[in-house]
Amino acid sequence: MSIRIIITGGTFDKEYNELNGQLFFKDTHLPEMLKLGRCVVDVQVQSLMMIDSLEMTDEHRQAIADACIASAEDKIIITHGTDTMTNTASFLQEVVQGKTIVLTGAMIPYKFGSSDGLFNLGGAMAFVQALANGVYVAMNGRYFKAGTVRKNKATGLFEAL
Amino acid sequence: MSIRIIITGGTFDKEYNELNGQLFFKDTHLPEMLKLGRCVVDVQVQSLMMIDSLEMTDEHRQAIADACIASAEDKIIITHGTDTMTNTASFLQEVVQGKTIVLTGAMIPYKFGSSDGLFNLGGAMAFVQALANGVYVAMNGRYFKAGTVRKNKATGLFEAL
Amino acid sequence: MSIRIIITGGTFDKEYNELNGQLFFKDTHLPEMLKLGRCVVDVQVQSLMMIDSLEMTDEHRQAIADACIASAEDKIIITHGTDTMTNTASFLQEVVQGKTIVLTGAMIPYKFGSSDGLFNLGGAMAFVQALANGVYVAMNGRYFKAGTVRKNKATGLFEAL
Amino acid sequence: MSIRIIITGGTFDKEYNELNGQLFFKDTHLPEMLKLGRCVVDVQVQSLMMIDSLEMTDEHRQAIADACIASAEDKIIITHGTDTMTNTASFLQEVVQGKTIVLTGAMIPYKFGSSDGLFNLGGAMAFVQALANGVYVAMNGRYFKAGTVRKNKATGLFEAL
Repeated sequence: MSIRIIITGGTFDKEYNELNGQLFFKDTHLPEMLKLGRCVVDVQVQSLMMIDSLEMTDEHRQAIADACIASAEDKIIITHGTDTMTNTASFLQEVVQGKTIVLTGAMIPYKFGSSDGLFNLGGAMAFVQALANGVYVAMNGRYFKAGTVRKNKATGLFEAL
Repeated sequence: MSIRIIITGGTFDKEYNELNGQLFFKDTHLPEMLKLGRCVVDVQVQSLMMIDSLEMTDEHRQAIADACIASAEDKIIITHGTDTMTNTASFLQEVVQGKTIVLTGAMIPYKFGSSDGLFNLGGAMAFVQALANGVYVAMNGRYFKAGTVRKNKATGLFEAL
Repeated sequence: MSIRIIITGGTFDKEYNELNGQLFFKDTHLPEMLKLGRCVVDVQVQSLMMIDSLEMTDEHRQAIADACIASAEDKIIITHGTDTMTNTASFLQEVVQGKTIVLTGAMIPYKFGSSDGLFNLGGAMAFVQALANGVYVAMNGRYFKAGTVRKNKATGLFEAL
Repeated sequence: MSIRIIITGGTFDKEYNELNGQLFFKDTHLPEMLKLGRCVVDVQVQSLMMIDSLEMTDEHRQAIADACIASAEDKIIITHGTDTMTNTASFLQEVVQGKTIVLTGAMIPYKFGSSDGLFNLGGAMAFVQALANGVYVAMNGRYFKAGTVRKNKATGLFEAL
């Protein structure tokens, strides 16, 4: 069994530029995080884009869908900014069939030490193996079917519609 | 839905005593780890014992089984030292029915900063929600049915029998 | 012997707001950092302001100078943003006499895990005890007399004029 | 100006062996710590030995003294286990002249995330530049002349005799 991990950016992979005090994207930390987790699952990590999810357009979403459809693996994790993660989940549910797709992300950059990202990645890795075909959002230790979930902007938590 | 988390000790919860340089148990870090993971799943954390799994006897295992049977929640995570985790899983499989039980642990203490524990806890939290009734070991991003898994002492990794 | 620590803000004390992805100031981390360093020096921590050093005006600098003059302790550490730290040092040198004043800061927020702040704080604590009266900038393991140092904006390092 | 850093082991550089749960020495973390501290002081790092200070004999201490005497740099930092750091300081004071020597260490291994080592290293780097010739112990934000200090085994803190 092999699992595809599609990287799209989001808080997960942000870093701090110490020269100008801005957050920015460099490389994905996914391989480092999987190593930290002593994860031995066979994975294919695919860096598709590195963007804030607030900047994600339907063209970006189509590119993600295309990558899911083209994937030889039928278990797919997508790392994604939290702000529009539920939108992308709904989009994918319309156009990708026959695969288990789990979107996850982080509220705090992994590099900032107290990230929820490692916990979420462990969860996504488990959900993608154990859940039936479909598109899911996995955050806060829970999972939701695409189309049944929203991010509560006041609390930062994901909740059922 | 509520999940019971039974604490038994293991590397997960070890700390460093800076006065004598020894590792020791104080309190469980589970609540802190769940908070770090922004986990909002309803959990009942039960500190049953705080021991090295090398010291775990069948009396200890019976106490764990009793706690599982008494649990009002039918989804149960058990944190456990890795050395005899598979033994306890097999023991529980014999005596506990009708529940989903996931054993997990860590190779490095959570307090040592680079622990696999947070990744494993995220995975256990997901597996316990998504897997059918039965007893499982969740380590290294994977899950195994009790009785089908061993720890490879040379690599520290869990693998199928 | 007692040492006064005057907090003015800077990268040192910035935190990440996980709801909007912005950096912001909440409370100073100085007491926590001193505890982490097992520091037992008697200190008076004074939170004077919490600002970016790019926003620091001469009114702010006068307030810092007033705090230094009013200080009963003649050994003073000032935490300060790095962008205008050398300006404040020069300002203080003109108006404060008879005290040892060490300005320090950080390139990365302490909360981001890989901060240089703890190293710099250890250095400032040492320099303020061991150097003669005067105003100094302590960064990158080095110290400079006020008026003899600049921050190299390309490298982020402090260097002699 | 260049500073010699002589590594002798101690808690500073201990790591956790995840296969057997024991602490052990591998390589020194000094270069990594100096990088983290954005330290640009010119340093010569010399790994002389990697031992617990409880195992340190007078032969070891003579080897350290020889290294200090042979050092082209007259400013020397020695990383050392805390248990017998004051003994080594007294030994060196008898046999090394004309140099500033600062011994420091850590109560918690650097790799365990909450180490006092980075704070202490920043302090040692400062003291060695600012103090007159002599042998000193730098711990807990303070410095002591060799022969005037002991480690309080109950508190783990260094204090004046």
